[in-house]
Parts: sequence; C-alpha cells; structure tokens
Amino acid sequence: MMHESSLLPVGVLGATGYTGREMVRLITGHPRLRVAFATSESEAGKPLNRVVRGAPDIPMIRAEDARLEEVEAVFSCLPHGASMRWVERIRRAGARGIDLSADLRVVTEEMPEWARGAVYGLPELYRDQIADAELVANPGCYPTAAILAIAPLVRRGLVGEAPVVIDAASGITGAGRSPKRDFLFAEAAENFRAYAVGNVHRHLAEMRDQVERLAGERPPELVFTPHLLPVRRGILETIYVPLVEELSATGAAGVYEEDYGEEPFVEVLRDGTPSLAGVVGTNLLSIAAVPLAGVSSPLLMVLAAEDNLLKGAAGQALQNLNLMQGWRETEGLT
Amino acid sequence: MMHESSLLPVGVLGATGYTGREMVRLITGHPRLRVAFATSESEAGKPLNRVVRGAPDIPMIRAEDARLEEVEAVFSCLPHGASMRWVERIRRAGARGIDLSADLRVVTEEMPEWARGAVYGLPELYRDQIADAELVANPGCYPTAAILAIAPLVRRGLVGEAPVVIDAASGITGAGRSPKRDFLFAEAAENFRAYAVGNVHRHLAEMRDQVERLAGERPPELVFTPHLLPVRRGILETIYVPLVEELSATGAAGVYEEDYGEEPFVEVLRDGTPSLAGVVGTNLLSIAAVPLAGVSSPLLMVLAAEDNLLKGAAGQALQNLNLMQGWRETEGLT
Amino acid sequence: MMHESSLLPVGVLGATGYTGREMVRLITGHPRLRVAFATSESEAGKPLNRVVRGAPDIPMIRAEDARLEEVEAVFSCLPHGASMRWVERIRRAGARGIDLSADLRVVTEEMPEWARGAVYGLPELYRDQIADAELVANPGCYPTAAILAIAPLVRRGLVGEAPVVIDAASGITGAGRSPKRDFLFAEAAENFRAYAVGNVHRHLAEMRDQVERLAGERPPELVFTPHLLPVRRGILETIYVPLVEELSATGAAGVYEEDYGEEPFVEVLRDGTPSLAGVVGTNLLSIAAVPLAGVSSPLLMVLAAEDNLLKGAAGQALQNLNLMQGWRETEGLT
Amino acid sequence: MMHESSLLPVGVLGATGYTGREMVRLITGHPRLRVAFATSESEAGKPLNRVVRGAPDIPMIRAEDARLEEVEAVFSCLPHGASMRWVERIRRAGARGIDLSADLRVVTEEMPEWARGAVYGLPELYRDQIADAELVANPGCYPTAAILAIAPLVRRGLVGEAPVVIDAASGITGAGRSPKRDFLFAEAAENFRAYAVGNVHRHLAEMRDQVERLAGERPPELVFTPHLLPVRRGILETIYVPLVEELSATGAAGVYEEDYGEEPFVEVLRDGTPSLAGVVGTNLLSIAAVPLAGVSSPLLMVLAAEDNLLKGAAGQALQNLNLMQGWRETEGLT
Repeated sequence: MMHESSLLPVGVLGATGYTGREMVRLITGHPRLRVAFATSESEAGKPLNRVVRGAPDIPMIRAEDARLEEVEAVFSCLPHGASMRWVERIRRAGARGIDLSADLRVVTEEMPEWARGAVYGLPELYRDQIADAELVANPGCYPTAAILAIAPLVRRGLVGEAPVVIDAASGITGAGRSPKRDFLFAEAAENFRAYAVGNVHRHLAEMRDQVERLAGERPPELVFTPHLLPVRRGILETIYVPLVEELSATGAAGVYEEDYGEEPFVEVLRDGTPSLAGVVGTNLLSIAAVPLAGVSSPLLMVLAAEDNLLKGAAGQALQNLNLMQGWRETEGLT
Repeated sequence: MMHESSLLPVGVLGATGYTGREMVRLITGHPRLRVAFATSESEAGKPLNRVVRGAPDIPMIRAEDARLEEVEAVFSCLPHGASMRWVERIRRAGARGIDLSADLRVVTEEMPEWARGAVYGLPELYRDQIADAELVANPGCYPTAAILAIAPLVRRGLVGEAPVVIDAASGITGAGRSPKRDFLFAEAAENFRAYAVGNVHRHLAEMRDQVERLAGERPPELVFTPHLLPVRRGILETIYVPLVEELSATGAAGVYEEDYGEEPFVEVLRDGTPSLAGVVGTNLLSIAAVPLAGVSSPLLMVLAAEDNLLKGAAGQALQNLNLMQGWRETEGLT
Repeated sequence: MMHESSLLPVGVLGATGYTGREMVRLITGHPRLRVAFATSESEAGKPLNRVVRGAPDIPMIRAEDARLEEVEAVFSCLPHGASMRWVERIRRAGARGIDLSADLRVVTEEMPEWARGAVYGLPELYRDQIADAELVANPGCYPTAAILAIAPLVRRGLVGEAPVVIDAASGITGAGRSPKRDFLFAEAAENFRAYAVGNVHRHLAEMRDQVERLAGERPPELVFTPHLLPVRRGILETIYVPLVEELSATGAAGVYEEDYGEEPFVEVLRDGTPSLAGVVGTNLLSIAAVPLAGVSSPLLMVLAAEDNLLKGAAGQALQNLNLMQGWRETEGLT
Repeated sequence: MMHESSLLPVGVLGATGYTGREMVRLITGHPRLRVAFATSESEAGKPLNRVVRGAPDIPMIRAEDARLEEVEAVFSCLPHGASMRWVERIRRAGARGIDLSADLRVVTEEMPEWARGAVYGLPELYRDQIADAELVANPGCYPTAAILAIAPLVRRGLVGEAPVVIDAASGITGAGRSPKRDFLFAEAAENFRAYAVGNVHRHLAEMRDQVERLAGERPPELVFTPHLLPVRRGILETIYVPLVEELSATGAAGVYEEDYGEEPFVEVLRDGTPSLAGVVGTNLLSIAAVPLAGVSSPLLMVLAAEDNLLKGAAGQALQNLNLMQGWRETEGLT
C-alpha cells in the first residue's frame, strides 16, 4: 500500500445505505484510494468508522457540505431521482462521477445534455469507453447479471423469436436500508414471493436498452420477474433463452468462454451451477449455460449469480474507477 | 370429536420423515381418525408422541410388524422405490392405500396390474374417481402446484405452442430428513441455487402425464427448474404460459374462479400475489394469474404457492382419505 | 362447534400487530367465541380476513368506533401506555377485560383504584382469582417463562442468597410489527446480541413483583438479560438458581412435577431439553431443571421455552378467558 | 505481495471442514505464505481451488501423502483425537505445528513428553512464549472468548466467590461439516436450544486450566452453558462475574482498556454492545463490560463476541504463526 498522502482522495455520497457502506469498505481496502468524505443526512457528525469498521475516523457530513472539488472522483449512492442533481454538481466541480443510481443508465428525452454523455459502466461490454469516461452510469444489480448472461447469445444472433424469460431472485439488501414492514425479519424470514409482477419492473428499460445495442435490429423481447429471497445478499437469475439453433452443453460453454474467458470477474462454469454461496463476498458473476431436454425447439437455460452489493453495485463501481484511472481492473477487488 | 372407540383406525408407514410426521399430526387432529400404528425402522420402540406432540403414546414399530389387516387405511410415506411393495401388502390385507411416494403416480409398462388401478389423488381434477378408489397415488409436491396452476388453461385449449416454463422453488423439508451435507444449515442458509437442471427432474413425467390427460392431443411442452430455498417449508412456482389469445387480468381471474371458485383448498387471488407466508401451515394452493406487458405474443404468468408438506403431501393425502370415506373434504384440514 | 348465533362475541383492540393477529386467529378457532369487532387505526376499513386467514369477513374499525357494550369480553393488544385508558372504557361498558399490555401488571401508586383490582393472569399461580376476575392483566412474555420456571423453587424457600440469573433470548416478533431498522431482515439475520443491558429491562419489575408474592420476606434478587434471536417466534430462558441445598436431577424434576404435573400447559422434561422448535405453535411452557456439576455451592439450571405469542401473550390471554367463563381451560388451545 | 518463490510453504491437514477451508482461505490471502499441500481423506484428488475460491490449483492429497518435511509449518485442522498423532509427525519432520484440535490444549498425565511443550496459543496472554514456540495448541472457540473476557478481572483478583456464569451461543459451523440431522437447515432454522447441559462441556477443562494459571490460588469456579444459534458463524458469550468490589462502567472499561488497549484484535466497547454482525468476517474479539443494577453484591456482565472460525479458530492460528515467524501480528488478517 502506498503512503497515505499519495492515495487518491474520493468521496461517497450516501454512505450509510447498504451500497454506500459497501462502497466505503471497498475504498478503504483499495491500495490507491482513500475516503476523503462520506455523506449522510441522517447520521452526519457520526464517525465513519462507526458505520464501516476500518474506515477512516472522519465525521460523516451532509451532502451540502461536501467539497466536491477536492476529490478526484465521487461515487453517488444516493436514491434514484435524487442522484442526478448531485452528479451534475460533481461534474461541475471537475470530479469524475460514478453514479450508482438508475438516473443516468438509460438516455431519455428529458435528460440534460451533459447527462447523455454518461457511459454505461459494464466493463465486460464497454471497457474502452469506460476508460475514457468522466461520468459513468453504474448498472443496476439485476441488469448486470441479465445482460452479461445473454449478451454472448444476443450479439451472435442466436436468440429466437419467443421472449427471453428472466426469472430472478434477490436478497433483501436489494430493497435498501430504510425501515419498511415488508422487509422486517418477521415478515421476510421463511417467506418467498414475486414482486413488481406483470413485466413492469423499472430495470426492464435498462435491460432492453442494452439488448437493443447488442442486437441491432429485432432485439429479443424480455420478460423479467423479480422475487424476494430470505437472504441478506445475492442475486440468482434463471434465464430461459429460445435459440435459433441447437447448442450442445459444450457448444454453449464455448460461446461463453470465448466472450468471458479472459474476464477477471466473470466465471463460466462447465460443471456445477451458480449459487449465492459461491459468489457472495466476491465481485464475480458466475454463469452456467444448460441446454434443456425434452423440448422440440432449442431452449437454453442460463443461470447467473452475483453479489448484488458487489458486482451488482459497489464492486462494479470500483471496477469502473480502476478502468477510468488506468489501473489494474482487479485492484482492491480480490 | 367422537368417542375414541368409534374413531377409524389408520396406519402410517414411515412416520419419522417430514411427511410422515405431518401425516401423524394431521391424523391425530382429525375428528374421525386415530393412528393405530406408525412405523419407523430407525426409531422403532420409541413412543410416537416423542416424535409428534399430541400423538398417541404408542411405540413405533418396524414395518414388518404392522398389522395391516387391522386398519381401515394406510398412508405410505416410505421412500420412492421402497413404497410399491408395501402398497401391495396393504392392498392384499384389504386396507385402503394412499401412497405418498412417486411409485404409482405414472403408469408404466413394468407396473403390475394391480398398481395400474391407482387413482391419481388430485381432488380438484379427479374427485369422483378418488371417492370410489381403494388405492390412491398421492401427487408430488411440485406437480400438485404446477398441474392445478395450468389446468384451467390447458383444458380450455388456451395454451400456445411455446413451452410452458415452470420456475419453482422449494423449502428444504422437500429434500427429506436424512442427513446430507447440502442440506446442513451452514450450507443452505443465505444460499439459493437451481438443482436437477436441464429439464430432467423426475417430477416432469408426472406433470406431463397429467397435462396430456387434460389436453388431449398436442399437449403443451413443459420446462421445469426447481430451486432450493433457505426456508423450511413452502413451494412457490412462477409459471410462464404462452397463450393462443390475449387474456386480461379480469379474464384470467375469471377462468380460474370458474374452475376453482368452489374449491375449499384453492384460493384465487385477484389482487396481491401468492407467498409462502400466506400458505405455510394450511392445505391451500394459492394462485394468481398475471398477464405480462411488453410482449408481442400473449403470455400469462401464473404464480402458485402451497405448503409442500400439506397440499403438496400429507394434507392432500388426508383430503383424499376424506373423499374415499365419503366425509366432508375439509374434515381435519382447517 | 356451536351454532354461530350462540357464540360469545368478543372484541380485539389492536388487531394488526403480531399479538393482535394471533389473538384474532385463536378466537376464530375457538368453539365458543366469535370476533365481534377488531380495531386498527392504520388499517381500519380493511376486511379482517385479509389480515388473518379464516377470520370473519368484517371490516376492521377504529378503536373509537368499537361498541364495547355489545361484547362479553375485550382483549386489548394496544401498546403499553395507550392500553390503560381503553381498559377503563371496557370496564365502564361492562365487558370483561384482558389487557395484554404491561399497564396493569404491576400495581403502582399512580394507578387509579379500579386498575388495582386487575388479577395477574398467570393461571398456574392464580387460577381461582382469574376465574372470579372481571379484569385480567395478562403477563409479559419473558415474565411468564421466568416466573413459572422459578416459582416451585421460590415458594419452597429453596433459593439461596446469590442472585437468580435469567439469561433470555427472544424471536423478533417480540419487538412488534412497527418498521424499525434494527429488525430488518438484513440487520437481524445471522446476528445475535443482548439488549436492554445492565439489568434494567422493564419486565424486571413484573418479575420481582411476582417473586416477592411467592417468597414472602427476603425474595431472591433477579438479574435479567434479554437477547435478540434471528427467528420469528419463541423464547428460551436459561436460568441459574443458587440453591440452599443440593437437589438431584430426580429431585428437581420431582419438585416441578409436583407443582405442574396436572397443568395442561406446562411440560416438565425428564430427559432432553426445551427448544424453540418444541414449543412454537403451542401454548406450552416447556421446562427442564438440570443440576450443575463442578461447583462447590449447589446451583440449578432451569431451562424454559415458550412461544412468545402464545403462552407468552395471546394463548395465555385465551386461557384466562376460558377460566373467567368457567370453560375447560384448554378450549381452543390444543 | 512477494514473488511466489519467496513465499513460505505451509501445509493444512484437514482442509475441507469449515475450519480447514477458512485456514486455506487465510493462507491464500497472506502476503508471505503459500499453501504447499492441503489434505482431505474424502476429497483427495479434487483441486483445492474447487473448495476454496482463489486457492492454488493443486490437488488435495491424503494426509499419508503429505510431505511434512518440505514445509515450514503445518496447521492441523483434524478432528479431536486424531490430531495428536499427526502433530507428532509434524514435529518429527521438523516443521512448526499449530494444532487447531483440542488435543494439546490441556496438559494431562497421559500426554507424551513432547506434547507437553506445546504453548497455548492465546497471543493476548502468551505472546512471548508463542514467538519462541515450535508447537502451538490453538485455543478453542468458546475458551478464546471466555478467557479473554474474564482475564483482566481474574488476574487483578477482582472476582468474588460465587461462580462465574458463562452463557454462550454459537453459530452452526461450530458443529462441523459432517452431516448430522440436528444440524440440517430444517431442524436448526427457527430453533434455539442449549446443549451439553449440566456444566459438562469439554471446553470447561481448557477454561479452568487457563483461569487457574491467571488466578494462582483460589481460582473462580466456572459455569458454562453453550447454545446452538440459527446462524452460520459467530459466538456471543454473556458472562456474569461476581466482583469483590463495585466497579463503575468507566472503571470496568478502564480495566479492559489497560489490558487490551494496544491489542490489534481485541476491541473494548465503551458504548454499544458486541454483536455477531459486528465481528463475523473479522479476527476481532469485541468486549463490553456492564455493571448490573439492582443487586446487593457487585456483579459485572461481560459480553464478548467473535467469529468462531476466525478469532475462535483459523484467524487466531494465523495470528500465532505470524508471531512464531516474527512477522507483524496482523499480517494477512485485516
């Protein structure tokens, strides 16, 4: 680790949510970074190391009091909706911005010009653009797994006409740290249910946007159903992909290895299947592709698991900053 | 409750597994039944009420020692494979048999003649045959939910050509009570994964068999993926059904209410979605049908939840015996 | 079950908390009772059977709108502090009152005269007084287990001079259904901690009050430390009691069986130890007394387990009403 | 990190249990160590990195095939009873040994001479001896927390005559990875119970031995009751210590800070209380001392939490090796 004074100062907006705390923890462990400020409206004044063990002993501050111009980069872990105006300030202050909210992930008509320049921070797809970016829209947790799980098939034109069905389940940290009855232990333990049913979850726009970029014309339709798991962390997506032609198990694995064989944070399983236990605590996306027997038209099941707070949020954000700084992509992430 | 001596004596083979214990518990609470014997190879000699609170204070016996001829009916909770020869003895002894194993659920060429006469014990589909049956093949936990969830669509010819995708998750009691590493708390807690991947789970034959009966020619293809949930009890199935024509939410609910409106153990939700918490501890199957937006060809999501040990096993077995005896179907189940 | 019209109407104040819902569930299943009204400030208007499956299809009402004079008895599941003024109204309306809050459990100087007449509703100690009572203070969850666990020793003068140490752990429903961060799944799962440390929990006054009544002069001192368990329901108390003389395992069991042998809801274990799994879902208190080896002065460990929502709250409340009505004490509770 | 070839080779006996895997994980992340061999009788031949992500891609071997003479140190994670003869071989081969079993922790008459020389590996008490040791008996999980929690009081003669009561609860990894019914998810979830009741747990000898060393004559008596928690990792001990004189909260904290203020792996809390969530994943022991109100004779409650697999096992083992090698004690542990 370098001398303290040579560490690059970065800031974290919204440091006390599950994502924010994970962000602080990762920065603290990174050999080239230090947390220069961390904001919290509700816990301003409290020492940061009371919230994240091992973090600097600095008081958290209100976002208004953050000296954006004194840091090299800022991670915004603010809620969707609130994040965009802060990202604007970050950019004006000349710092690099990595926005973990959904605000910049999909370009819309209402978006201001500056916001349209944000690069979608999925390194496995946009590594070069990220390296040159000043502003990164960090992907959502569900989209990270879904997009990477189907990208190799989509970009090869292997996906048939029927919809791709993404059946997903997430641990409860995905719902945030605000106290809500549904997420009380006594409600969520020994329980399991779908939510946002009807193919209406807001992450769909983000997934569709990316699939369109990959597919060009006639992108596959997507169906997405999230479920709430009685675990703290982790996402598993079970994805059913209609194919235009049969793929053997070996053939399918070959496709994924071709695309991801060199990726430090994507693991392609040839035997075994992804599980939460296999990825929680790591920045990995673990993928297995399994041809389905007993159907007359080829159908591939792709299983993808990740830690929703790491590869699905803070870990990927740090992976992006590593790229933006020209550092080794895995720095502070293994 | 009737006088003890007027209670109908029944036996339970394999009383110490999760299903067997639930069976004993239900019989104990039934106003017209009493447990005459309960077998366990590993715990023979131990009082039954040490295993199930409130059960009779009789010693468990080895299956060999069971007086099959002295009871009116026998529930076999023995493992798949071992059950069939015991069911044969039950029938020879003149007792009614309800087999909770998979051995009799699907008629195969190798099956002896007597076994082919078993009625598939899904009351919502075969109530009349069950009432006349001497031998019932009690449905599997996953098939109970899956078949009832799609039957209204299948029998109306509403299902399109693409496969019906059944994405299912079960609590860990579904894996039985034998100690296996995968089901240790330290392995299963905070974990989630698919198993029996590739569309090869043995419950598929049972599902397909029933769907063929309902559909007549050109039954829909089925895809089934089970997952292991870190909960003790409960199954949720998220089922994607391609339709030959659009169904509105109201229309879909109407179809299900037409078929199940009078069913004591099927609940059709018009708002809200099924959850494990809503059904565990009951004999209910809770269903909601949700049309999916954003797809060009009509697709209906059917969610179905049940307690795997009740409607998925012992509860349904008792529902079947009630029918076989001509009693109120809900006796001892509410 | 009797004809609907012959069922005794009772009311529940505060029907949507964990205790209130359990109360409604128990009344619904009781062969002689019916829920005439159930109140909820936050969910008034919503059908009661949306909150408790199987309950009457009546809308919940605001407490202000409850017709207290039209019911035979009212269970108050309102929060501590708020309950007392409602109990006063109940009494004025001529209905019997069972108060599940802490408001009437300990007589204090500030208490109005009418409130001092409340009988402490621990049937195993005060069965006769409860039978004659118009107003019952239903014991707290921790005190129920603690008092019954040590009563046989205290009333026999067997407790030595050192403090009785009550180390207790409760499931999270004990903390109520209001959303608070500490009780979110993501905070409470895989966690365990003491709370209210320093021997200052408010249940201590209630325990001490009862121990004084049992002991006469020189009651034993009590030390009480509660912990928060990552389970939904259940309390286990591990209690260390200094004795004035040695008690063998058999002798200790004999003492407990002498006092509780005929009790329908106290189970004295001679082998094995109480566990949450053994009592959750029942109205039982399960007790084992274990002499401790390797100490020079006799020390008895008493383990006591109960379901905090049943014997620790709603189940005991119903047991009390059964007594007040002169019914079989176990009616609706087995 | 140093060049691969300059890393010190160490071996792990019994690498596939929970402790063994944690040991491999820690060594893999240590900047000065590499795993030269890892043994498993049941999984010999399987690549080590299939069991521990990130570990070297070497096949696990049977213990018989381990080249003990080619490594600098060996960690034995073998079961109690089996470990001692392997430790003897380790010593004969000239390697340093750190034995994580209970075999060498307490000197007994039957012990061979060489075994008596093992140093008890609790760095906070025996740092200097460990630094010079060739053989270390790594403390048990419960004793580590208990001994460090009371040592400051014991060595100051502050403990009174009544027994010290240690009420402890451990996560399920403490029970090992062999499949046993009691530790199945469906048995252990939503459950809590005491075990080894009666003050007979084998860890008592180890605790008593250490307390005697600290106290000199008239060591305090110990009472120890372990409980099984439905979590994967972590131990919390709630300890009641009779004092010879009153200690204020500040005074108590002062005593602990005097002893542990400089310790890298002991945290003394002045406000708040230790929780599993605060320590799991770290090598910390977190302690708080709370004077108890309302008792006539001074009584101090000491709460102590640790990760049973880290400070309670593998983490402490590595801390010991760091000391034995003369490295920074925290190397590879933060």
